[in-house]
Amino acid sequence: MPELRKDPVTGRWVIIAAEREKRPRQIGEMNDAARSEPCPFCAGNEAMTPPEVMAYRNETSPANSPGWSVRVVSNKYPALVDSDARIFAPDPIYESRYGLGVHEVIIESPDHVVNMGALGVEQISQILRAYRVRMRELTKDPRWRYILLYKNHGDRAGATLEHIHSQLIALPTVPAQAAGELNGTKRHYESTGRCIYCEMIERELRQRERVVLNSAHFVASCPFAPRFAYEIWILPKHHAAAFEQSSDQDILTLSSALQEIITRLNHALDNPPFNYIIHSIPPRETQSVHYHWHIEILPQIARAAGFEWGSGMHINSVAPEDAARLLRDVTV
Amino acid sequence: MPELRKDPVTGRWVIIAAEREKRPRQIGEMNDAARSEPCPFCAGNEAMTPPEVMAYRNETSPANSPGWSVRVVSNKYPALVDSDARIFAPDPIYESRYGLGVHEVIIESPDHVVNMGALGVEQISQILRAYRVRMRELTKDPRWRYILLYKNHGDRAGATLEHIHSQLIALPTVPAQAAGELNGTKRHYESTGRCIYCEMIERELRQRERVVLNSAHFVASCPFAPRFAYEIWILPKHHAAAFEQSSDQDILTLSSALQEIITRLNHALDNPPFNYIIHSIPPRETQSVHYHWHIEILPQIARAAGFEWGSGMHINSVAPEDAARLLRDVTV
Repeated sequence: MPELRKDPVTGRWVIIAAEREKRPRQIGEMNDAARSEPCPFCAGNEAMTPPEVMAYRNETSPANSPGWSVRVVSNKYPALVDSDARIFAPDPIYESRYGLGVHEVIIESPDHVVNMGALGVEQISQILRAYRVRMRELTKDPRWRYILLYKNHGDRAGATLEHIHSQLIALPTVPAQAAGELNGTKRHYESTGRCIYCEMIERELRQRERVVLNSAHFVASCPFAPRFAYEIWILPKHHAAAFEQSSDQDILTLSSALQEIITRLNHALDNPPFNYIIHSIPPRETQSVHYHWHIEILPQIARAAGFEWGSGMHINSVAPEDAARLLRDVTV
Repeated sequence: MPELRKDPVTGRWVIIAAEREKRPRQIGEMNDAARSEPCPFCAGNEAMTPPEVMAYRNETSPANSPGWSVRVVSNKYPALVDSDARIFAPDPIYESRYGLGVHEVIIESPDHVVNMGALGVEQISQILRAYRVRMRELTKDPRWRYILLYKNHGDRAGATLEHIHSQLIALPTVPAQAAGELNGTKRHYESTGRCIYCEMIERELRQRERVVLNSAHFVASCPFAPRFAYEIWILPKHHAAAFEQSSDQDILTLSSALQEIITRLNHALDNPPFNYIIHSIPPRETQSVHYHWHIEILPQIARAAGFEWGSGMHINSVAPEDAARLLRDVTV
């Protein structure tokens, strides 16, 4: 069973999940036998995954059969599991907990599509609606303090299956990265009365040098201090704290923006591996004036190395102003 | 020129160093032309690097010529540079600084050796003595608040040249990762009067299940809450805060331990890519009772992915107890 363990010096939590070692691999280092295995995410192979949690499917097709366009299942090799939580025996220095949580997979096409750039806006919009459904549903459960929706695309970005998919993990605590963001936005709100992301959007739209896309409702720009080369954030122009409260119209315009950004990345950088992460306010936060949801797209071209792991600081060899220029100017 | 930039929300600093984009590549994705380039780290090619900062060499050989066994040079593509520091123009939300620091490369063999496991204890000992010389020297400069010594071995661990080498970066501030460790050790010392690493060593030696090597002066064990599969820490058994204050005898026994651990990793995991990082107390810390220097060896087998970048938490699919058993039992 998965276990949460706390480093006694830094207080950093890790998830020890030995079950995940058994995952099949479609990409990266693997042998030909593995490569010829059927894909568990393709239509027709529904029995290869756990039963579906939800799906968008035609009305006549039964659950766990073909006829779907987007399908959500429990992760077969979960990092965390939803079960009766037990606190481990107390220990003077080594703290651990049962690995409580939810780990789901959003399968983003019934066909063996391997790149989001190949999908139309309507399909991307269905995918984002599925994210919204699952986040809304999990938000109702008072145990979950944070819901992390992320995509790993390509071997270098940590994907093990190439069939297009994203993942969702619901956590019983707000993790360090999200807590850092929340503290920062609250501090800024308390001292200025403003949402710092709203201020950054105004600044970027005035200055323009880091903006990649400026549509009616969304702006995509390379952040001022990016950890990764060609990192891009997509933000709603109007203040909104929770992705899962987006309207259908928001989702549709976001889908266009996301498709255009992925297409620009693919053309400019020859289909780079990337992660994207939806940063949304934690479900149990009572105030929403300070936080602003957004998507962070993190191309994985260089690698985090000894310096990054030892210092916590990233070295980025592409200035965001240069990255934005390339992504703006590329012909799509 | 490199630049330090602060994320306005989280306060996280990044280094923007566009010069590094010009680095040559010996490994990973590259074309045949790059592969046939001469290696800048091999004896005879000294003119391909910046002039040497120090070298262990036979007495008759002049600087920057063959005749050396370990050679330290400035990094030709530095992440930070030692120059007159200037604060950038103040900005209400976007804080930046000139990228002040030192970035050196320790070339660990005159021959084109690509794996530390191929080196004898005497050569490893010379390498560690070179680390000590450079750390002692840089510690004298009051501008440097932290010195990070690290190795990137293999493409997945972020190396771009395969010829065996390590790197050293001196920083004008204590970075987040080190600050977190220091805060944790101080907090533990204040509440218990003890060094937490000393307590962990006692516990590991009593419990044994995570110990890989137990020599007279050093213990190597998989930590209780490792971020990476097969992560191993090497710690001196007797309390010591600064690596650079190690005696010649310490260095010699550490060299044996390091060689054995690298050999065990190579045999158990088929020459895995890895980083190692020397964690030593910052030069300007006045107290040393709470901190305990050590080496963290981080094999890079899985990849940090969307979950890790979005949460700050790592998922590790190999329990340290299982990792230690494999590394103990492997035939070397």
